[in-house]
Amino acid sequence: MKIIDALKWRYAAKRMNGKSIPKAKMEAILKAISLAPSSFGLQPYSIIVVQNADLLEKIKPIASMQPQITEASAVLVFAVWDNLTQERIDNYITLISKVRDVTKESLNPIKRVIESQLVKTPEQNFNWNAKQAYIALGIGLVAAAEENIDSTPMEGFDPEMLDEVLQLKEKGLKSVVLLALGYRDEKTDYLVNLKKVRREENKLFTSLN
Amino acid sequence: MKIIDALKWRYAAKRMNGKSIPKAKMEAILKAISLAPSSFGLQPYSIIVVQNADLLEKIKPIASMQPQITEASAVLVFAVWDNLTQERIDNYITLISKVRDVTKESLNPIKRVIESQLVKTPEQNFNWNAKQAYIALGIGLVAAAEENIDSTPMEGFDPEMLDEVLQLKEKGLKSVVLLALGYRDEKTDYLVNLKKVRREENKLFTSLN
Repeated sequence: MKIIDALKWRYAAKRMNGKSIPKAKMEAILKAISLAPSSFGLQPYSIIVVQNADLLEKIKPIASMQPQITEASAVLVFAVWDNLTQERIDNYITLISKVRDVTKESLNPIKRVIESQLVKTPEQNFNWNAKQAYIALGIGLVAAAEENIDSTPMEGFDPEMLDEVLQLKEKGLKSVVLLALGYRDEKTDYLVNLKKVRREENKLFTSLN
Repeated sequence: MKIIDALKWRYAAKRMNGKSIPKAKMEAILKAISLAPSSFGLQPYSIIVVQNADLLEKIKPIASMQPQITEASAVLVFAVWDNLTQERIDNYITLISKVRDVTKESLNPIKRVIESQLVKTPEQNFNWNAKQAYIALGIGLVAAAEENIDSTPMEGFDPEMLDEVLQLKEKGLKSVVLLALGYRDEKTDYLVNLKKVRREENKLFTSLN
């Protein structure tokens, strides 16, 4: 399926039918997410793939009792680095050095550029990291649609409570957005037959030629 | 091309060769961006499509003299609503009412939910809006790759200076990220043959089954 067709097919399913996503499709979605670009390539987030039914029952009240939490096959929790730290930068430099088989010393110029971000406040860096996670979110939902998997991005939850349930604080992470993955329930979802609403392209885009 | 292959093919080209992107391919990329989901469907941003050579020359020094600004075929400027306002919400409700052919009154419940965000500070709403733009950015770069068009997301620019050049403040917009679209220059781009660096999937993802 072409990306445009996938995007037209998808919508934020409000009700799902509980059916499980085949392993190969889940793997394809996660692979696409892992390939998402990010500033400096840092990928300043972790993604928690929640499929445990008891845990999803616990998360549901934290997410305004939205039914797709427990009707989905999996809920991805995009959990962002609470801050940028020297250790995280060092780990990244080690990773580049391994993957590209170059010395760490040769990476000093890029290292210094990333380190220049350390002067920012934790909140500024957290906001920056959160934006990078949304790139991965966008790619994840296109990848899901390509596999004919429904996906619902969800911001309507209490991040602090979710962080506690998933013990994210200890890992220096903060949840910012969820992506419920599953199959739309055409019988119960009022949204399924509603027309997609998008701003007209001549209003969304301004061309300066 | 499957999305995963498109993502493996793409990289953030640092040098482009100045070749123009055919109109149909540009339209496909913009169409995909226009279909990006956003919180409540608000699409709280405008995208300025800059192809004017003089303007790109003006933007280049604002973007740390990065060569792809003038070597690209087009630079998309993601310009985010500086705040959420009653007028913007009203316009959106009018749009839903038209597209779905329902009365505005029937949309009061969703309208009230969106209005509840008005209590937030302009900065909070701006940050929220910026994250939505990054979903569209992620989708835009996948759509470009599907068309074999290179794309470079760029945060290294002075947003206030760019806003002034593009007169965005008057429109209640703030630039947050650029996407240079064009063709990689394999002769001059040091990045073209370097291995893609991504965190290992077993570190990026945590499964809770």
